[in-house]
Amino acid sequence: MFRKLDEIKVLRDPVHGYIHVELQVIWDLINSSWFQRLRRIRQLGGAYMVYHCAEHSRFSHSLGVYEIVRRIVTEIGDIEKALNEQEKVTVMAAALLHDIGHGPYSHALESVTGVSHEVFTCRIIEENTEITRILENCSEGLAKDTADIIRHRSANPLLYQLISSQLDADRMDYLLRDAYFTGTKYGEFDLERILRTLRVEDGRLLVVKGSGVYAVENYIMARYHMYWQVYYHPTARSYEYILHALFRRIRDISSGEDDLLPLFRPLVNKKKISLDDYFKLDENSVSFGFEKLTEHPDPVIRDLSLRVRDRKLFAYADSSPGGNRKIRNRLRNEGYDLKYYFGRDTVAQNPYIPYNGDHNEAIWVRMSDGSIRELSNASNIVYSLIHGPAHDDNKVFFPEDK
Amino acid sequence: MFRKLDEIKVLRDPVHGYIHVELQVIWDLINSSWFQRLRRIRQLGGAYMVYHCAEHSRFSHSLGVYEIVRRIVTEIGDIEKALNEQEKVTVMAAALLHDIGHGPYSHALESVTGVSHEVFTCRIIEENTEITRILENCSEGLAKDTADIIRHRSANPLLYQLISSQLDADRMDYLLRDAYFTGTKYGEFDLERILRTLRVEDGRLLVVKGSGVYAVENYIMARYHMYWQVYYHPTARSYEYILHALFRRIRDISSGEDDLLPLFRPLVNKKKISLDDYFKLDENSVSFGFEKLTEHPDPVIRDLSLRVRDRKLFAYADSSPGGNRKIRNRLRNEGYDLKYYFGRDTVAQNPYIPYNGDHNEAIWVRMSDGSIRELSNASNIVYSLIHGPAHDDNKVFFPEDK
Amino acid sequence: MFRKLDEIKVLRDPVHGYIHVELQVIWDLINSSWFQRLRRIRQLGGAYMVYHCAEHSRFSHSLGVYEIVRRIVTEIGDIEKALNEQEKVTVMAAALLHDIGHGPYSHALESVTGVSHEVFTCRIIEENTEITRILENCSEGLAKDTADIIRHRSANPLLYQLISSQLDADRMDYLLRDAYFTGTKYGEFDLERILRTLRVEDGRLLVVKGSGVYAVENYIMARYHMYWQVYYHPTARSYEYILHALFRRIRDISSGEDDLLPLFRPLVNKKKISLDDYFKLDENSVSFGFEKLTEHPDPVIRDLSLRVRDRKLFAYADSSPGGNRKIRNRLRNEGYDLKYYFGRDTVAQNPYIPYNGDHNEAIWVRMSDGSIRELSNASNIVYSLIHGPAHDDNKVFFPEDK
Amino acid sequence: MFRKLDEIKVLRDPVHGYIHVELQVIWDLINSSWFQRLRRIRQLGGAYMVYHCAEHSRFSHSLGVYEIVRRIVTEIGDIEKALNEQEKVTVMAAALLHDIGHGPYSHALESVTGVSHEVFTCRIIEENTEITRILENCSEGLAKDTADIIRHRSANPLLYQLISSQLDADRMDYLLRDAYFTGTKYGEFDLERILRTLRVEDGRLLVVKGSGVYAVENYIMARYHMYWQVYYHPTARSYEYILHALFRRIRDISSGEDDLLPLFRPLVNKKKISLDDYFKLDENSVSFGFEKLTEHPDPVIRDLSLRVRDRKLFAYADSSPGGNRKIRNRLRNEGYDLKYYFGRDTVAQNPYIPYNGDHNEAIWVRMSDGSIRELSNASNIVYSLIHGPAHDDNKVFFPEDK
Repeated sequence: MFRKLDEIKVLRDPVHGYIHVELQVIWDLINSSWFQRLRRIRQLGGAYMVYHCAEHSRFSHSLGVYEIVRRIVTEIGDIEKALNEQEKVTVMAAALLHDIGHGPYSHALESVTGVSHEVFTCRIIEENTEITRILENCSEGLAKDTADIIRHRSANPLLYQLISSQLDADRMDYLLRDAYFTGTKYGEFDLERILRTLRVEDGRLLVVKGSGVYAVENYIMARYHMYWQVYYHPTARSYEYILHALFRRIRDISSGEDDLLPLFRPLVNKKKISLDDYFKLDENSVSFGFEKLTEHPDPVIRDLSLRVRDRKLFAYADSSPGGNRKIRNRLRNEGYDLKYYFGRDTVAQNPYIPYNGDHNEAIWVRMSDGSIRELSNASNIVYSLIHGPAHDDNKVFFPEDK
Repeated sequence: MFRKLDEIKVLRDPVHGYIHVELQVIWDLINSSWFQRLRRIRQLGGAYMVYHCAEHSRFSHSLGVYEIVRRIVTEIGDIEKALNEQEKVTVMAAALLHDIGHGPYSHALESVTGVSHEVFTCRIIEENTEITRILENCSEGLAKDTADIIRHRSANPLLYQLISSQLDADRMDYLLRDAYFTGTKYGEFDLERILRTLRVEDGRLLVVKGSGVYAVENYIMARYHMYWQVYYHPTARSYEYILHALFRRIRDISSGEDDLLPLFRPLVNKKKISLDDYFKLDENSVSFGFEKLTEHPDPVIRDLSLRVRDRKLFAYADSSPGGNRKIRNRLRNEGYDLKYYFGRDTVAQNPYIPYNGDHNEAIWVRMSDGSIRELSNASNIVYSLIHGPAHDDNKVFFPEDK
Repeated sequence: MFRKLDEIKVLRDPVHGYIHVELQVIWDLINSSWFQRLRRIRQLGGAYMVYHCAEHSRFSHSLGVYEIVRRIVTEIGDIEKALNEQEKVTVMAAALLHDIGHGPYSHALESVTGVSHEVFTCRIIEENTEITRILENCSEGLAKDTADIIRHRSANPLLYQLISSQLDADRMDYLLRDAYFTGTKYGEFDLERILRTLRVEDGRLLVVKGSGVYAVENYIMARYHMYWQVYYHPTARSYEYILHALFRRIRDISSGEDDLLPLFRPLVNKKKISLDDYFKLDENSVSFGFEKLTEHPDPVIRDLSLRVRDRKLFAYADSSPGGNRKIRNRLRNEGYDLKYYFGRDTVAQNPYIPYNGDHNEAIWVRMSDGSIRELSNASNIVYSLIHGPAHDDNKVFFPEDK
Repeated sequence: MFRKLDEIKVLRDPVHGYIHVELQVIWDLINSSWFQRLRRIRQLGGAYMVYHCAEHSRFSHSLGVYEIVRRIVTEIGDIEKALNEQEKVTVMAAALLHDIGHGPYSHALESVTGVSHEVFTCRIIEENTEITRILENCSEGLAKDTADIIRHRSANPLLYQLISSQLDADRMDYLLRDAYFTGTKYGEFDLERILRTLRVEDGRLLVVKGSGVYAVENYIMARYHMYWQVYYHPTARSYEYILHALFRRIRDISSGEDDLLPLFRPLVNKKKISLDDYFKLDENSVSFGFEKLTEHPDPVIRDLSLRVRDRKLFAYADSSPGGNRKIRNRLRNEGYDLKYYFGRDTVAQNPYIPYNGDHNEAIWVRMSDGSIRELSNASNIVYSLIHGPAHDDNKVFFPEDK
């Protein structure tokens, strides 16, 4: 029913070996301008300022998530049987497109625009773009079905469990991929083993066989370590904070439009951003914009954009009332506007969130006697982790002493 | 002072890249017949019955431990300065020789002879063997000093902390090595990072810089997973149990000596085993002995030695009063001698044992403010693990239903 | 004499494990805006259109070349002794800066501007930039000495042999790095082994010990395969051709300046490009420029820039008089301007170029009897390769049939 | 038709990830005592005396060859279609059993017994052993069909091309495996790529698609380097020579049988070795025998067996009339029997042997135009290699100066 390519296309990928494409619709999506745009959006925001090789894009991550889902729905017997052809194609498309709505430096950008990238993902899939047309030409209703997976509204919850849950293809790919490109070992876990132990309960719930619990524990720990070592690295957060301050300053001072690149205008006027404008917002264009801003009349914009361009980051310290007061006093004396030059940031990470009312959110284990247990009841390690003391990190960021 | 080789010898090693030998005494030890004998003793007892590639010997592990210690005492500034030349050579020799007293299938063997391999290690170092002569020719007293490290009696506790503590070169090498040869990823951790963060407190206590805590957590988890996935694998324990039963049966029925290979006699008569006899007890000779025993008049010996040779292992089940009773009844009906055909085995593993009165046994962290904390006070993960529920596994082993 | 950092800085790198920085001058160079700009220039031009993960920048490659040179001048005894402190610092700086003059899509750009990136490298080092000031503040004359290594004019030829010869740190890093990021194994070779066998003859000539010949053969083969599998991949060349055609078209039609971004003007007017303008020419800004050009009045520019942005590449075929004629006829009929829409490209690669009069250009081997042989006289493999039939590939590129 | 296991068995393997067993007959063969015996025969004879981690057995290699063949006949469409079910099972069994006839230190042993291990392989498969019974119980005639593949007598030559040709599963596995366990990179090549480009011509000839030529070149080079760096390493050959001399000496002096272990008797009397006796000849038993021989009355046997046990190897030098004369004179003066204490050994390796009359022996490439070329006509590299100067190494081995 779904058209296949004359010959399977294989794309070399260091994380998975190869990405395999057999369906015409997937190949067309990959070759669309919206998907190619993901080459211009990096996977890691500030972290590549710490790990200099982590320059990989959301393009390769999206292919990786697709590949994991493709393997699950074709190679894991239980899931292969639980889904029909239409569902398989839809979930592969959703895997490929799940990050299509990301913009440049998403975290900082979203905090200024107030619009999450998931909203853009669904708009790009459904608002009559090239993507919409490819999906609809393939099968009527495919665009909506694909977006429904992103929105967690599929009739069969199995579909979104594969893409977005605590044990999903998205996390599995980004942990392995970010570990590979940062050069850390922390994110490594046994993907093969996890895939082999996936099963389906009642046709709707993804579960792991008991013999896979060790591999899942390993994955949970990998995630924990990647968060603290990579994603929450204070230097990365320093960079993110400056981006954030820069976007805020742009918004705060730009009443008119003359003094800014057209590129940045959608951020300033409060209207809904058109997809055409959004398309052009990639890291290349924004980086060019920052370069331009280094000559802007406003000294705060000039300084912050130079800092972004040349990696002149803020210092950081553990947040404490006394310490913060001292720093703020110094900054005031040196003439800094604290609104942009003093930031506080608390990060916390739960290695795993146990069952809280929504079955689709937890990880479930099928024990050898057939019973189903929630992960923290099947693993001492996970139980200990979620009942142990919370781990958070509260830091302040500010310009170094001159 | 210590004689160096004309040219550094490098031995290719897949785990460390190369093993570097610069000192004559180390080179002579490696070339001794006692050290070469370690090629005939496998690193993993029963586990290579599960992971078929884990056929590596204590020879390569011993070189690996030496290499880690060599790097620590020459490359880590703090430790390089804390030790004098004599201490460095001694701890490198101890690293190389720490397992020299291992016999074939050590666990099973020790439980029959009642003598631990550490006793043999010290005897081989000190009882006027080729090893003793090499050490004493190099420097008078070196044999005793080396054995003192093994016995935890060095004047400077730093020396045995490097070889045998909860964060030592022995564990670091075997986790990485066993992971490599089993083909699991569980044992991998960031050795480089841990080495770089090692420091010395007060000239006597090994500590880790605070920035190394994540790497240590990772190492603790690696150890945890290797125990449950590899060392405590029920199939490995089944094999160990049969070895154990076979050794016991040999001891129980052999009053005289005629019916056994000379090889096994030291196990039977209760005299102290001579080092000459011990030398000949390697896995090759014992394996040959097992082959011979497949033709022994005693049917239990015949059966158990065939099981060892051909990997006809016992089945296993979780231990429970009711279940065990049923199994034992069946076995009795089938004519099995339960003394050798029904075994119980409980394993438990503490990922980390916190401070219990002996400073040298815990892992210590130097925080960024200079204070020293015991690991479980510096790591939420480790704190959670040791305060969470204990993890043990209680199994019974027995012949399968015919 | 040369100022050291309080603590060695280590940057995580997946290819080398860590990049080590001990000298203040190296740290300052890394933190300069010119060096940070290399994050915005990719290492591989068209090849990342084939190998989607090859998104790495010249920033990480430059750090890698520096690290290899640092290791050679500090760890390889023979070279460590042959160079004085000043020479060591200079060659490390040259390693770090050897690619500092690269612009975006260098090959295509250079063919339009007619200026090679080496010229810019020397200008950036010597023309009173931030780089010049860092070098001169460290040691008077260091800027010129560094540029002299790039220009192959150092008093001691050993210095530029390390950076730019047939067995140099540049090639060694890029083969390993490109292999890592493309995910191919072809570029892998035994770096450790080659480094260990490097020696110095007469204080001026880099040679390899005879025992290293196999590793060098392996490296030569790795290079050969990387060229044909990655660098000369027809799809990569198709992308390069389109870039080239686009740059040419910009130059050809832009008499005035109104219709172009200021960014591209230096390419059009024939004046010497200022370093300030060159600084702003990075892949981000040029990519933004291409996006703008998709709305340019000229249809050729519009089409070509769209093709670059969305990866709508030209088809390719083996070049042949008859085949080319047919294609050109079709293109003419379809209204294409053949100047931009039909390209021919011949690539050829010598795995190794033997001695041709300049000692510094060949690879030399010190045999076990102390004699020195040129590589092709010490290796049957290399001899066979350079005396075998030449390998070239002659292709034409053109828009696919509509 | 062929019975499947209730659940696929997966064995962890560091080279292939997992070995998959789906068929009962394969599982039974693996669990037979003959196959388990391969755990007691090392893959590499002398080479593990150089590369200390290369302690892996023919057991893991045999599983690896099976796994490659299993993947080829189930995953490569062209081959999957060319073979019927019976042929697929037969070739998988042959892959698993192709080395079943190997004895301890095969090369040295064969040169003394004059019987090749292939003869034993076929005897073990066909002479009513446990192996024969497993095969025949599965399907009548399967034993002979399996042995026919080993003997290159199958009706369909495709079957033995997969197991034993210049591009076969045997070589592919041992190169990768030996590279992994020695820790060298030389043996690595892109197995995935080669497998994906395998095709069948006329239902009977294995060919490689033109796009796979680079991967095949890489494999040819890997083989070349493994031979010279590992298999032909002079130290490995020194060890092999001593084994060989020891076996010869045993044969030469043992007229009677009293002075030898029963184990070695089959080597001495010239009768055909029974499979029962051959079964007991493994490296463990022979190693035990060597230990015994260190106390033998004959001084040559005593010395040579000590050398084997303790790795006291012979020195080596390039063979030359003058040099050899000098060495032989010295040895005579020192009282050595040159028959056992002076050996000459010439090794030569053809990276590839082109078509010489037997189609099944060459590697064939299907070009993009559908024509079939012999590899050396499709690859410049291979053409150059086979037309370049021959590479051989002629060495003598002898005891070092006392």
